[in-house]
Amino acid sequence: MSYNSTGHSHPDVTWQQVFKNLDRKGQALNIQIRRSLVLAIETGIIKKGDKLPSSRHLAGLVGVARNTVTAAYKLLIDDGFLISKDRSGIFVAADILPAPSRIISSRQKTNWPESFAVAPSQLRHLQKSRDWQQHSYPFLYGQFDPAIFPTNDWREAIRATSSVSEISHWAGDRIDDDDPELIEQLCVQVLPRRGIFAQRDEILITLGSQQALSMLVQLFGKAGSKIGFEDPGYPDIRNMVQMSPATEQALAVDKKGVIPNADFSACSVAFLTINKHCPTTVTMPAERRREVLRKAIAHDIVLIEDDYEADMMLDESVKPNSLKSLDQDGRIIYTGSFSKSLAPGLRIGYIVAAPDVIRELRVLRRLIMRHPPSNNQRILATFIALGHYTQHLERNGKILAQRAELIRNLLPQVMPDCAFEYEKGSMSFWIRLPENCDGQELQKAARNKGVLIEAGDIFFTSPEAGKRFIRLGFTSITGTHIETGLKTLGSLIPRTAH
Amino acid sequence: MSYNSTGHSHPDVTWQQVFKNLDRKGQALNIQIRRSLVLAIETGIIKKGDKLPSSRHLAGLVGVARNTVTAAYKLLIDDGFLISKDRSGIFVAADILPAPSRIISSRQKTNWPESFAVAPSQLRHLQKSRDWQQHSYPFLYGQFDPAIFPTNDWREAIRATSSVSEISHWAGDRIDDDDPELIEQLCVQVLPRRGIFAQRDEILITLGSQQALSMLVQLFGKAGSKIGFEDPGYPDIRNMVQMSPATEQALAVDKKGVIPNADFSACSVAFLTINKHCPTTVTMPAERRREVLRKAIAHDIVLIEDDYEADMMLDESVKPNSLKSLDQDGRIIYTGSFSKSLAPGLRIGYIVAAPDVIRELRVLRRLIMRHPPSNNQRILATFIALGHYTQHLERNGKILAQRAELIRNLLPQVMPDCAFEYEKGSMSFWIRLPENCDGQELQKAARNKGVLIEAGDIFFTSPEAGKRFIRLGFTSITGTHIETGLKTLGSLIPRTAH
Repeated sequence: MSYNSTGHSHPDVTWQQVFKNLDRKGQALNIQIRRSLVLAIETGIIKKGDKLPSSRHLAGLVGVARNTVTAAYKLLIDDGFLISKDRSGIFVAADILPAPSRIISSRQKTNWPESFAVAPSQLRHLQKSRDWQQHSYPFLYGQFDPAIFPTNDWREAIRATSSVSEISHWAGDRIDDDDPELIEQLCVQVLPRRGIFAQRDEILITLGSQQALSMLVQLFGKAGSKIGFEDPGYPDIRNMVQMSPATEQALAVDKKGVIPNADFSACSVAFLTINKHCPTTVTMPAERRREVLRKAIAHDIVLIEDDYEADMMLDESVKPNSLKSLDQDGRIIYTGSFSKSLAPGLRIGYIVAAPDVIRELRVLRRLIMRHPPSNNQRILATFIALGHYTQHLERNGKILAQRAELIRNLLPQVMPDCAFEYEKGSMSFWIRLPENCDGQELQKAARNKGVLIEAGDIFFTSPEAGKRFIRLGFTSITGTHIETGLKTLGSLIPRTAH
Repeated sequence: MSYNSTGHSHPDVTWQQVFKNLDRKGQALNIQIRRSLVLAIETGIIKKGDKLPSSRHLAGLVGVARNTVTAAYKLLIDDGFLISKDRSGIFVAADILPAPSRIISSRQKTNWPESFAVAPSQLRHLQKSRDWQQHSYPFLYGQFDPAIFPTNDWREAIRATSSVSEISHWAGDRIDDDDPELIEQLCVQVLPRRGIFAQRDEILITLGSQQALSMLVQLFGKAGSKIGFEDPGYPDIRNMVQMSPATEQALAVDKKGVIPNADFSACSVAFLTINKHCPTTVTMPAERRREVLRKAIAHDIVLIEDDYEADMMLDESVKPNSLKSLDQDGRIIYTGSFSKSLAPGLRIGYIVAAPDVIRELRVLRRLIMRHPPSNNQRILATFIALGHYTQHLERNGKILAQRAELIRNLLPQVMPDCAFEYEKGSMSFWIRLPENCDGQELQKAARNKGVLIEAGDIFFTSPEAGKRFIRLGFTSITGTHIETGLKTLGSLIPRTAH
């Protein structure tokens, strides 16, 4: 880049403005200073040729060590954003981007909904709080507790996958392939926990189990075929089926899970939760499992087992095998994810199915998004291979089991008029409120007191049927906050006369 | 875990087997030793209570430093896989997983295709070589050159996003949100390069532009509406439209890009490549752009601008604005990605559109996969914020421009009977072969000589129309290999009589 100094020096107030977002609890200050300067250059606040303050002056002005400023300047000089002229100082070297020149006509196109083929915004779905970290008592399901995340072990896996040869492994276009190391670890370390012994060509990596379920609805959602889902059940499966050309079939559930009745037998495909029914947490007993499987074979029903709490071992005495482990003719499709067991933000899940199904899904996945990011597949594979995942599950499981035990002991005291379901090893409680109490209203009232819970009506095809239920999760609330949170919640539930 | 030593010692041959995959050019040996031992424990090759060789013995046996073995043992003891008993040695402490007990009936379900709603495997799509890194002359489009990847700058961004507070930012379930920092960087640093000045609520992050296009087809692919795509053009848009309920409309292309004729006017939605037509590389001139836009407004056509080479600046003199920069009523939807400009394996792209469209797409995205992984969004945001992206584009652009220049000078000599299109700044050459030469056959013959090229017929709705074309990419072939590769390719093209 050619260089012409304007020699222009900005007043201190400009620099204070440029660095106003420095955050001592955020990223390294060296990084924050560079980010701020690059932003000021790219947005034209400081221009090519402008003079920077001396490192001593800037350090004093924004309250950082002089070394930090010197280091930041040096790196920006290396990157061509700044230039140093002996004796006269440091200047902006980079060109700025074009200035905004947005032409907006007052006649904006507004008839969009007419052209939409689907209207997902019209569907009922779980409303999750974006600001849950600001509440003291987040009894939420499936959220994340930074205190449990295995930070150091994860960093080791990141470092191990950041070498030049590792990068050239993951940075390329893998077309439709997954990382063979991750597939290997799933076969050897992950799936056997649920009694599943899969071959390499029976596994596809997905963007969490959400994408696994969505792709399966896309693949099997044929006009004229009937897709079954549990009622109550996971609301997004219902939504996905409603958006597909297939016919929906709600399936009744009792204390043993889905009931293999005539509705069930009429389905071409059925989505089921077996080890822990969503949302009631009940475990399907062995006899019901065999009955479901017998019916599925007799009526040629494809079974999709959504093992949404895959790998969570909250109780060492409970080692529930999957329905898939009983699969003899390949009709069971199994989905799992690392969202609950590691972190939802990583978005890694998987499908285990017959090779014919995986082959078609792989082509479908290539067409709709190619493959889940390869760097994350690689990091996770290394994390598992080093034994960190096994260790994390064990530690994590113990912490969560303690929380569950605490809640189980407190509930009868703080909510004496409620009935609750809790299957040993589950990550949530399913609570039936007394007759005079509405789940949605309780959710609102609790929120005002800093207690976040989930109203249960969303899990039912008929909201009316679910208005007496709530779900309590405990993956993101620390043990010390549980008691106060539950007492607060209990105080909001009207007592029935005895 | 309780501990009972079996005291069993394995012969050297077992340990040689356990460590047979140690690779001196791979990950750190400490890591590889731990991976191998965890695998041996999890697969039951060594069992609880078995005795490990002394660190000195194992070091000698597999040829690593004794310190390396000691360090690996120590970490596995910390993680609970091994246990040290004073004076008697180190033993396996962990339980093993259940042994494989797969019951496979000989009667596997085989009638899968009957239940599939879609059959993506029946569609024609680009066949890419998985083994391209094993060929000397990969003239491929859109692949990755490890030598150009900004390894150190990327690592800095990774480190900056691996602190506890950063992890708690990205590891949670973001529901349907994107990282606000990445959106900010797109608004401020990335989109202005193409003359686009977008608001925060006009941007959605996608899993590469492949997912952006796929979601747009899903949103607009209504039964009865006509979706246009260029012919020749990107084959997967054609495939996506064919899988949707909408009607397909191939749009003719000339040396100025798509022709805004009656076919065009009949569309509800049209997918277009403007700055560089795919695959011919021609840039649409300003007058044609205005004509296309005029017709789109007159017939209320939604235009989707697929800027698949977004940000690539192979020639500083060419700063082509997007069609989107001329958008006055919000009817243009713009898609771009970091696959070409940074790395395809990261899978990060974006959609810029009117807030009404982004809102509906965001709900759709939540339903089908929630959001692209948050850690990658965070790393990329930091990478851009530090100015590394700007610097990378400049350096990368210079290297690719040199390769393009080299090819442009060589082509008339080595392929005198071919006609070629190359628009300054493109990342590929579009070549018309002589009458007696077939693209598919040339691709096969070239592959046998280590030269990878792409036959052009796949880009046409009628393969026959495209059988005389090939595409040459140069993003993954180093400058020194270009000349030999091109000469080899030229020698395979039959000379026509003059």
